[in-house]
Amino acid sequence: MKTVSTTRSHGGTQGVYAHDSSETGTEMTFSVFVPDAPPGARLPVVWYLSGLTCTHANVTEKGEFRAACAEHGLIYIAPDTSPRGDDVPDDEVYDFGTGAGFYVDATQKPWAQHYRMRSYIERELPALIAARFPTADMDAQAIMGHSMGGHGALTIGLRNPNTFRSISAFSPIVALMQCPWGQKALGGYLGDDHSDWRAYDACALIEDGARVPNILVDQGTADDFLEEQLKPQLLAEACETAGIALTLNMREGYDHSYYFISTFMADHLAWHAARLK
Amino acid sequence: MKTVSTTRSHGGTQGVYAHDSSETGTEMTFSVFVPDAPPGARLPVVWYLSGLTCTHANVTEKGEFRAACAEHGLIYIAPDTSPRGDDVPDDEVYDFGTGAGFYVDATQKPWAQHYRMRSYIERELPALIAARFPTADMDAQAIMGHSMGGHGALTIGLRNPNTFRSISAFSPIVALMQCPWGQKALGGYLGDDHSDWRAYDACALIEDGARVPNILVDQGTADDFLEEQLKPQLLAEACETAGIALTLNMREGYDHSYYFISTFMADHLAWHAARLK
Repeated sequence: MKTVSTTRSHGGTQGVYAHDSSETGTEMTFSVFVPDAPPGARLPVVWYLSGLTCTHANVTEKGEFRAACAEHGLIYIAPDTSPRGDDVPDDEVYDFGTGAGFYVDATQKPWAQHYRMRSYIERELPALIAARFPTADMDAQAIMGHSMGGHGALTIGLRNPNTFRSISAFSPIVALMQCPWGQKALGGYLGDDHSDWRAYDACALIEDGARVPNILVDQGTADDFLEEQLKPQLLAEACETAGIALTLNMREGYDHSYYFISTFMADHLAWHAARLK
Repeated sequence: MKTVSTTRSHGGTQGVYAHDSSETGTEMTFSVFVPDAPPGARLPVVWYLSGLTCTHANVTEKGEFRAACAEHGLIYIAPDTSPRGDDVPDDEVYDFGTGAGFYVDATQKPWAQHYRMRSYIERELPALIAARFPTADMDAQAIMGHSMGGHGALTIGLRNPNTFRSISAFSPIVALMQCPWGQKALGGYLGDDHSDWRAYDACALIEDGARVPNILVDQGTADDFLEEQLKPQLLAEACETAGIALTLNMREGYDHSYYFISTFMADHLAWHAARLK
């Protein structure tokens, strides 16, 4: 792991790091904010998974998370959204390939070699964090994300209820199998057997028995992707059937941007902090 | 004036606007955040002047000002830092020409025609704001800025003590005549007569009799520009001699970036709010 930069901010250290990932076979960049803490202290960890076209940088610059992380004593990790590099296959479009890993392990050529974001986020990067950030309490982790990253947070959280104590999302894709972004991604990365898709669809996971105590979602009503891609009502229905306590805040007039995310970031972090302590 | 975008954020509206400026002879872009307010309410106005290379966008995306503006009921205006366009003379360097207007009215060719940022900020843009934002209480204004924009806030505030009730700055250039950035800018825009320079140097303005009750400055100790360009001790000396109450917070380990600015933005806005009410 190499340090790209460390910068003092909000009573802590905002770092950007890079490492050679064995899962993706590429150099992967991520950011970590660590609030100041007494010697020997161990702090809970919040993962933030980003949306289409983003890198670690978008939320790191625009997410307004550091003040709340410093207040609650939370380490905040923002990974990239796909492998990148000259050797990595890509597509010209914004919603498949680079910047659009969809947090899956691809099985189809030519994607399968590098597009292993599920294993990268679920296993490789947590192990690196545990080894290199001794302040991080890996027994107290939460996960959140935005849009495609909201899908990532929901599916990874639902598949790993013993790892993540709490799950939240901003404008998540709640059912990858039931929207154009997801159908394209799942078909391209996983092929045509829909039974392989269900592990990457939050609503299907709940239908298939995944259980967590509660989920927090904020969704803007002026989000251009709301009806065609995001469909929070499907998550509401799945959670109601399954007995999962979903808090779904519909935010009047808010859109899909970081102007929306930053508005409710502190609320989400307070919610996670309460469940991590 | 045309609306480039309006976005809901932090219980208010973040707008970006553009207009044809008669001072600069160009289209100028700026951003305005207006918190929600009851019908008929009038809100104090805070001006934020940006630093070298910036546009309105840097602080609008990274400044973390909206939560505090919503809390205190403050309108927040972020202008551009220079005229821009194909017809505007420029220099290849980052510290003169485009993105480096230094809040002066240039007198030298070829800069004098367009580089009129002093008059633009002191007269033209406030008149536009007063006409187009009826919520803005132009009798309750504050001014702040960063680096070159800290110089702008200090000099414009000191020259207009009846307009601005409070002045603050992050890592300001406090004496344009005593640093390389400033000597280059003043020579290029104003020519060799140093008596013309003093209206654009905060310390010289104070030496020449400008008075305000108090000034707030935050400065990072790990700022790469601290010793050669910024020199806050010169402002401390000038304020002490003049009886101006300067609060100079030296922030250990902080640099020159928005990671620093965003950390102390809420403190500055609370300070202004207390003086605007």
